[in-house]
Amino acid sequence: MKIITQETITSAANAEIKALRSLHERKYRRQTGLFLAEGMRICLDALEQGHAPHRLVYAAERSDIAGLDRLSAACLAAGGRLLPVSQALLGRISRKDNPQMVMAAFHQTTVSLQQLTADPDSCWIALDRVRDPGNLGTIMRTADAVGAAGIILIDDCTDPFSVEAVRASMGAVFSVRLAVTDTPGFTRWAGDWPGEIIGTALPASCDYRKADWRRPLVLLMGNEQAGLTEALSGLCTQLIRLPMKGRADSLNLAVATGICLYEMNRAGEM
Amino acid sequence: MKIITQETITSAANAEIKALRSLHERKYRRQTGLFLAEGMRICLDALEQGHAPHRLVYAAERSDIAGLDRLSAACLAAGGRLLPVSQALLGRISRKDNPQMVMAAFHQTTVSLQQLTADPDSCWIALDRVRDPGNLGTIMRTADAVGAAGIILIDDCTDPFSVEAVRASMGAVFSVRLAVTDTPGFTRWAGDWPGEIIGTALPASCDYRKADWRRPLVLLMGNEQAGLTEALSGLCTQLIRLPMKGRADSLNLAVATGICLYEMNRAGEM
Repeated sequence: MKIITQETITSAANAEIKALRSLHERKYRRQTGLFLAEGMRICLDALEQGHAPHRLVYAAERSDIAGLDRLSAACLAAGGRLLPVSQALLGRISRKDNPQMVMAAFHQTTVSLQQLTADPDSCWIALDRVRDPGNLGTIMRTADAVGAAGIILIDDCTDPFSVEAVRASMGAVFSVRLAVTDTPGFTRWAGDWPGEIIGTALPASCDYRKADWRRPLVLLMGNEQAGLTEALSGLCTQLIRLPMKGRADSLNLAVATGICLYEMNRAGEM
Repeated sequence: MKIITQETITSAANAEIKALRSLHERKYRRQTGLFLAEGMRICLDALEQGHAPHRLVYAAERSDIAGLDRLSAACLAAGGRLLPVSQALLGRISRKDNPQMVMAAFHQTTVSLQQLTADPDSCWIALDRVRDPGNLGTIMRTADAVGAAGIILIDDCTDPFSVEAVRASMGAVFSVRLAVTDTPGFTRWAGDWPGEIIGTALPASCDYRKADWRRPLVLLMGNEQAGLTEALSGLCTQLIRLPMKGRADSLNLAVATGICLYEMNRAGEM
């Protein structure tokens, strides 16, 4: 256990601060396997889920803030470092005008597809090339709310560990399992999947309310603009659609996913 | 019908361009009653809904782009102006790295609460201090998809005409009616409302699947952080909750609204 410094860091040129700021870029998140989470609440959520901060940044003048002692202890016990900083520096790290008083870098956790087994009651959400970090974070949040097993990211998806996705997840990034794969990998895995694979598709004839939502199941959602690829929709055991009454031909991806997941839970309970 | 210029504008200091760029700020949107919409698709959507561009900006080198002739004609017929610009200037106006080839300023349209009558089949969505422009835009998009009558914005809401909200609405800003009011105004209006007013509240005992979704109805959703105020939840004829199975105690506002609206439609149809 070593404490490098307890002196307030005020310079953005400090090596630790530069490393934290670089975590806004996917390249550095990949290289380091770390990501940023902001705010006391999400950091304490992380702790409850068994994730200790690797670097803990806080406003030096607010070192009495409730919860900081627990976070600090967990950080140090895990071999991490405490970084008390000036208020101005917090803004530089978070890139927000009103930054949170506490931020932390955590280790990214993902699972491999091979580890994903089909518990009889499990539901996985598979996303085909999801592009918007807000959508992905919001889907993580909903996945947590419905007790889904986790999320499978297929092909070129936005990074679940970006600051925007983590913000939108409201802490679910720490509780929802994430697997990253490509179409061939998902295709192989789907071949052994014993349950339903339900995809959403515009020309699908089955109203989502009439689908067989029995678990285990995979809910497979397509890209925001293009929908599901043909290869992926070919893996589905059911293709469903959400009825539209207006001018629009689609819903926001996170909204559509939420409606489907609540329909699944409805079917399981009522 | 007058065409001020057909010469390509290249300077960000051009008065028309400055005026357009100022529409990123709420203050200038208020002063002018205008807002920005980006992309050919949304501009043509606007036209179909009866909204002609007040100012039409397009990449001068792409003046052959499909649909531009219709938009130009409508703009001029409505007394508006065409502004062919350089590619670089498009980026300055939209503040995006990959701007759309077409952008336009439109007149804001809102309705007054007094105009909102209760058709037997109508559903209004009332939002209490919604703060996130992405959420508001997404709710407009869902409102359109379910055939809701419109959205009532109560107290200090994010601007439905911000660039972010308009983007997220995917054109629904042109088809969904918007009314702006405050708690006293909504309270007076609610006193004459002949139907249900369904609010979501954390401690509510009624599962959303057991609510009476009969129309006409108002779905009343609270602020992202704080939920509904006491004054507003006191106006509800039913308070409902969405079941949560995970660590989280709430869903994203746009997702929760979507689930409720699809539940309403389910109840009306099945």
